[in-house]
Amino acid sequence: MTVNPIQQVAIVGGTHGNEFTGAYLVKKFEQFPNLIKRSSFETLTLLANPKAFALGRRYIDCDLNRCFNKEKLSNPNPTALEENLAQAIEKILRPEGNSNVDFIIDLHSTTANMELTIIPVDKSPFNMRLAAYLCSINPLVHVYSWQQTGQESPFLRSICQLGCTIEVGSIAQGVLNATLFEQTEKLIYTILDYLDAYNQGQTNEISSTLTLYQCVEMIDYPKNQTGELQAMIHPQLQFRDYQPLNHGAPMFLTFDGQTITYSGKATVYPVFINEAAYYEKGIAMCLTEKQLHGLGAA
Amino acid sequence: MTVNPIQQVAIVGGTHGNEFTGAYLVKKFEQFPNLIKRSSFETLTLLANPKAFALGRRYIDCDLNRCFNKEKLSNPNPTALEENLAQAIEKILRPEGNSNVDFIIDLHSTTANMELTIIPVDKSPFNMRLAAYLCSINPLVHVYSWQQTGQESPFLRSICQLGCTIEVGSIAQGVLNATLFEQTEKLIYTILDYLDAYNQGQTNEISSTLTLYQCVEMIDYPKNQTGELQAMIHPQLQFRDYQPLNHGAPMFLTFDGQTITYSGKATVYPVFINEAAYYEKGIAMCLTEKQLHGLGAA
Repeated sequence: MTVNPIQQVAIVGGTHGNEFTGAYLVKKFEQFPNLIKRSSFETLTLLANPKAFALGRRYIDCDLNRCFNKEKLSNPNPTALEENLAQAIEKILRPEGNSNVDFIIDLHSTTANMELTIIPVDKSPFNMRLAAYLCSINPLVHVYSWQQTGQESPFLRSICQLGCTIEVGSIAQGVLNATLFEQTEKLIYTILDYLDAYNQGQTNEISSTLTLYQCVEMIDYPKNQTGELQAMIHPQLQFRDYQPLNHGAPMFLTFDGQTITYSGKATVYPVFINEAAYYEKGIAMCLTEKQLHGLGAA
Repeated sequence: MTVNPIQQVAIVGGTHGNEFTGAYLVKKFEQFPNLIKRSSFETLTLLANPKAFALGRRYIDCDLNRCFNKEKLSNPNPTALEENLAQAIEKILRPEGNSNVDFIIDLHSTTANMELTIIPVDKSPFNMRLAAYLCSINPLVHVYSWQQTGQESPFLRSICQLGCTIEVGSIAQGVLNATLFEQTEKLIYTILDYLDAYNQGQTNEISSTLTLYQCVEMIDYPKNQTGELQAMIHPQLQFRDYQPLNHGAPMFLTFDGQTITYSGKATVYPVFINEAAYYEKGIAMCLTEKQLHGLGAA
């Protein structure tokens, strides 16, 4: 591994204003900064979209977590509030003439039952080894990847080369769930301790492989010709994120009571099942392939 | 009982635009009107706030389900979209010179674990007997009352003297849950069948008492001097709607890990625990008293 010591870590919450877990964790860390202080690096906190958070809405004009691609970050005349915010956040985390944030943790929640999901910035050995370490100490942790290697990312986390999103659920939008709040908090401390140990040349023992859930297909809800929803997630699939879905198993239940089954041949592992914010994106779930990712020697 | 035969029933959904169960049930009934057709009365459907539904938001300007008090309904210059809507809905359900809707079913959902909650328009014998009947055939049904008798109501259901809100949960805002969708649908058919039987002079056998959960106090979240949230619903109380809460039992968990217990002497039965839409209203839960309500002879 050729990663230099980590000098600055950013913990970001409220990228989506109705995902309270991250927003209130950031507020807690601002009140009790010692909780996230480690001897070998600085830790910053950021409430990414305060206006959306104040209104309890995901966003004001557009999804902030889709504004971090090169095109939007370099747009000289951004109009949407979130496009402006993305450019401002980039300046905070990658200030000109100053040292950049090395490692990012972006805190999200989902109405899907994804427990503690780690979405690494990319599949670099450093990010993968950290993810494997987190899996090894907590069975609720799963590792998910949206993208194939090399694909451009519009997500806030992509502002750094190291780090991850933490996606916890199921939590309704606009509420706090104390159990998941505490689990997320503990996971953050584990990451900070890991980075601190790394800086001090200590390596944590991990297995040589990581189970990675790689997105292979996004599935929309059944809709009619005018684009209206015609079905719901089937009760037998609801809350079954990361469970195997085999050919012929129920996926949707139409409003008139018909079951629609999974027609694919390969076994897949759906995630983001019935995520509230993805209705408007036309995503009922993301089908993943379960991959064993080799980590190489430490 | 001195209630005349029911002539018109209204089923209302989407009073809150992010409560999808009711909105999509109304859409289903519009597509398949035979499902709600009964021989002895007419059934109307209404999607109450189409604009808020299209945006997946509870409301645009203000909470529509708090706009049905006399003051707002008689305001000659309503400005908020929902105040205008309330007046328009009143005209639909109580048209001048035409027969009014006799019975209303207003469909809501909650992030609290309230299963199938019936909130009758008032405690008239007719409404109470219907509620008791629904409880007798489905153990998931509970009956809740916000108000003491005689208090003015700002709720949409108050436009009629007969009827109820159906409040189902837990469901995250902005999603459909197929199991609760089907349970709600079945409950609506049961109500329609009951009304149809009533019109035909048939009485359903019910017990002589009804268990009613009467709101006695609304509890806000612990907040600091600037009004910021300082605690979450305690994990031991989360999702425990309608369960007894005794003196000394955990209610809240502060962000720094302190447990706040219930200090009241009387056993209460909290409902609307951690309802997302009530954060802005300053309601963490509603404490209820469990009452046995006598129904008298049929």
